[in-house]
Amino acid sequence: MVSLENIYHVCEETVPLYFAMILGYLSIKLWHLFTPEQCAGINKFVSKFSIPLLSFQIISTNNPYQMNTKLVISDALQKALAFFGFLIVTKVCCEKSMDWLITGISVSTLPNTLIVGIPLLRGMYGDEAVRLITQIVVLQSLVWYIILLIFFEYRDLKLISSEVATATQVTQATDKERNSNSDISGELESGARQTREENPEEKVANKTAPKTTLSFMLNVGKKIAVNPNTYASLAGLVWSLISYRWGIKRPIIVNNSLRILSDGGLGMAMFSIGLFTASQSKIIACGARTAVLSLVLRFILGPSIMAISSYVVGMRGLLLKIAIVQAALPQGIVPFVFAKEYGVHPDILSTGIIVGMIAAVPIALAYYFLIGII
Amino acid sequence: MVSLENIYHVCEETVPLYFAMILGYLSIKLWHLFTPEQCAGINKFVSKFSIPLLSFQIISTNNPYQMNTKLVISDALQKALAFFGFLIVTKVCCEKSMDWLITGISVSTLPNTLIVGIPLLRGMYGDEAVRLITQIVVLQSLVWYIILLIFFEYRDLKLISSEVATATQVTQATDKERNSNSDISGELESGARQTREENPEEKVANKTAPKTTLSFMLNVGKKIAVNPNTYASLAGLVWSLISYRWGIKRPIIVNNSLRILSDGGLGMAMFSIGLFTASQSKIIACGARTAVLSLVLRFILGPSIMAISSYVVGMRGLLLKIAIVQAALPQGIVPFVFAKEYGVHPDILSTGIIVGMIAAVPIALAYYFLIGII
Repeated sequence: MVSLENIYHVCEETVPLYFAMILGYLSIKLWHLFTPEQCAGINKFVSKFSIPLLSFQIISTNNPYQMNTKLVISDALQKALAFFGFLIVTKVCCEKSMDWLITGISVSTLPNTLIVGIPLLRGMYGDEAVRLITQIVVLQSLVWYIILLIFFEYRDLKLISSEVATATQVTQATDKERNSNSDISGELESGARQTREENPEEKVANKTAPKTTLSFMLNVGKKIAVNPNTYASLAGLVWSLISYRWGIKRPIIVNNSLRILSDGGLGMAMFSIGLFTASQSKIIACGARTAVLSLVLRFILGPSIMAISSYVVGMRGLLLKIAIVQAALPQGIVPFVFAKEYGVHPDILSTGIIVGMIAAVPIALAYYFLIGII
Repeated sequence: MVSLENIYHVCEETVPLYFAMILGYLSIKLWHLFTPEQCAGINKFVSKFSIPLLSFQIISTNNPYQMNTKLVISDALQKALAFFGFLIVTKVCCEKSMDWLITGISVSTLPNTLIVGIPLLRGMYGDEAVRLITQIVVLQSLVWYIILLIFFEYRDLKLISSEVATATQVTQATDKERNSNSDISGELESGARQTREENPEEKVANKTAPKTTLSFMLNVGKKIAVNPNTYASLAGLVWSLISYRWGIKRPIIVNNSLRILSDGGLGMAMFSIGLFTASQSKIIACGARTAVLSLVLRFILGPSIMAISSYVVGMRGLLLKIAIVQAALPQGIVPFVFAKEYGVHPDILSTGIIVGMIAAVPIALAYYFLIGII
């Protein structure tokens, strides 16, 4: 059973997160302290320094030679089940099936494990849970996010190919093509448009000569190469492979250098989510119906698939509990960043982050109780 | 004697500071990551959240009932000696004697104890040194900075009074007065001008009716009231008075809430100093001669006065060493912020910060060696 003391421990770990988030929120809504451009500066600091260094710290302390096989398999199984499920459903029901497939997978299977997950599960189940959720963080950063990126790039490729086909049929001039393109991608977020407009040549090259596989791989590679979080995660993995193989520890001087910025990472990240929340014109950007649907996917479907996958691979007891609760965390940030960049339902993901963050503790506690009784 | 191990300990504590500062510097100079406005956002976060919370953390852990009396007296004596010394010298030598008095005191007696001092002295002399320098931080935040602010306000008052006298003599219209004023204060930093221009009525009120003492006290009060660092320091002192009197500890939940942002304070502050350094058009903004003079004041005169004061009040051994080394730290940030706001030699103080930061470790080590031999 879950005791009051248990709940207090959860609060000890989660209230500070909300304290930082609320400060961020109030500094915009109440104190009008930062201009949008200044917020962008803080967010950039968080995404380029705080989060990558935090990822490195977390991943580099994970022993890659002692991953929990059942957890790894059930995590992969959850993603596979979600993929095939959404593949069938979106083919049947949706017009833009690829977009909805990506969004469905993002929303149901990619929770915020690094920032919210680790403190929350530490509060619930102690350090053993941290060891396990760290493994989920490793897989998320180095496998699932890269696969997600590949999906987005593949979707972009399809979009461009179909445009090329259309353009060729009507034999338009290149600049006219580009105009038609901007009509087609009219629904794209301004952020995404900007990213593309910065590389106009690249796009034209893609269109005139779709050497699909090579240019596709190059694009994915480029995206990975400019993402400091992937670097940091990879460096963390490499370091953990070396350090746990030969029992090497980082010199204190190096450790302190990393910790001086990563120690504040958690607080800065939550502060920045607070800024983000305050700067949205609407909390529920995607409409009430879609919001409810996405929350059902996030907080019920996702954990359910994880529960099934975990049970099937033979997980029981504490391990099973941890696997389920981590799947019921709020929406992860990275899928939103991608969604915004590629213009694929960023409104749904931003709603998932904000509403999810507000509802995170009650929902996690509900699961905690429910699982505690079973 | 000072061993290689001692030096390594100093590096363990100081290299991380420089790592954060260099990252800040490179993110402007090499990666062009932040616009000036974005930098302003990060700096604002540091000055409104990181530093106040860090001050609170440090001051609230200091036992105010066990202050080292000798240290407190020698610290006060150092400031008094510097005050009277500069009072005489500036009266004799300088035209704008008040400006040079303030700058002289700032440069020679107000080092960066919070950010640089604590880690550096921990590396040199261990936790006992941290306990002592924390007392210096308390005095600096709650006594010396407020006295410094009073000096600046007093200097402003004198400036305005003399303008009023001039204006009355030539009986000019009010708007003309304001023009003449902006000529007089032509040397003011744009930042300072901005602050004033935001409160034009206040200034006119001051000019037309100089109810000196009351409006002066009100001004000082107002400045203190809008400074989050003074609040935080005062709250830290109050809390330490309560907690050490009745043996009360903060609940973990409160402590974690404060630490989630203050833990990153040190790194963020150094990162922000790096941004500041990179955004200066000149490292030595005040000219080479003045720079050398200010560095002599900071690194030789200041520690010398402190050494004399400390020796006179009977400090010997470790305590004396710590008192001297802490006086040889780089220029503190707060006096620069004031100097910029009031337009009193901000160029000298910014040079002191930047050059001081670069030279801090070699100079501190030189003192460390020198004192180790004696």
